[in-house]
Amino acid sequence: MRKFKKADFDVNRIRRFLEPGPVVLVSSAHGGDRDVMTMGWHMILGDGPSLVGCYIWDRNHSRGLIQKSRECVINVPTFDLIDAVIGVGNTHGPETDKFAEFGLTPAKAKKVGAPLIEECYANFECKLIDDSQAEKYSLFVFKCVKAHVAASPKYPRTVHYRGDGVFMAAGKNRSYRRKFKPEML
Amino acid sequence: MRKFKKADFDVNRIRRFLEPGPVVLVSSAHGGDRDVMTMGWHMILGDGPSLVGCYIWDRNHSRGLIQKSRECVINVPTFDLIDAVIGVGNTHGPETDKFAEFGLTPAKAKKVGAPLIEECYANFECKLIDDSQAEKYSLFVFKCVKAHVAASPKYPRTVHYRGDGVFMAAGKNRSYRRKFKPEML
Repeated sequence: MRKFKKADFDVNRIRRFLEPGPVVLVSSAHGGDRDVMTMGWHMILGDGPSLVGCYIWDRNHSRGLIQKSRECVINVPTFDLIDAVIGVGNTHGPETDKFAEFGLTPAKAKKVGAPLIEECYANFECKLIDDSQAEKYSLFVFKCVKAHVAASPKYPRTVHYRGDGVFMAAGKNRSYRRKFKPEML
Repeated sequence: MRKFKKADFDVNRIRRFLEPGPVVLVSSAHGGDRDVMTMGWHMILGDGPSLVGCYIWDRNHSRGLIQKSRECVINVPTFDLIDAVIGVGNTHGPETDKFAEFGLTPAKAKKVGAPLIEECYANFECKLIDDSQAEKYSLFVFKCVKAHVAASPKYPRTVHYRGDGVFMAAGKNRSYRRKFKPEML
């Protein structure tokens, strides 16, 4: 599978890749164990610094690794990774090395121990800053500390989940910049 | 503008319309005042019952109305409402009646005081159940108590924000149902 050539990206501008609502792959590692999970429930909670709220179910093997390491990488796949997105989502952690199983290449991150996934369009290295709502809502708040984004295409063809096994691909893009007040951009 | 003909919809299945990440219009009302805001930062936090986490900035006029009434309606617009989506996002609440200004028709909801927006594809009546993270993250958790969804099209051409004034339209849909374990659907 294609590996994107990536460059460093401003951590405070990553909302442009997560706000449209793509399914992401979250990678984690702790004490010799590693995992990757498919995640569809997430939101931006700030862009200076970039905060991301993530729903990580207590039945996800990744949850323990993230709670112990207090780190993860949020990886943004494009539609050509749909088989991996679905496969990872259907596979329970400890039984399989999902990286090998689904053809995902782990690479060393700069600021966290969790691996980047080379085949993804973007990789956001994150530190867990708040798990006070984990018991109640399975909600974990991360701060992005390092971002790697492919130089092209400008707008990735991301994967969006509609439920019942149906996925939507990112469609056409159009700029309405002239209609915005400058301070709202 | 087109008004969708809507039917009641299972409140526990609304994630299929919010999980793909569309920009939504949030309507609210309290004590003779009403407002609508454009919102791009939200996430599903549960689907039995349906919980939605929403970022509502303290500079939004809607925030006060929602905190006082403890209710709102989350309305899902399609791309033909792009001018209203941008216009509402660029306009500050108390100075303008945004419904009149942007051609949005308010309609009476069943279980909340906030109005439905008739031109939107779906309307989710919501009760505020948790604002404990409002001060820290501007995060409000709502429970959907009544859902109205257009009978067609099956998949709405929703609006997704890429930042810098660029919007992405929902693209093609494809079912991968056969690749899912039944319990994962």
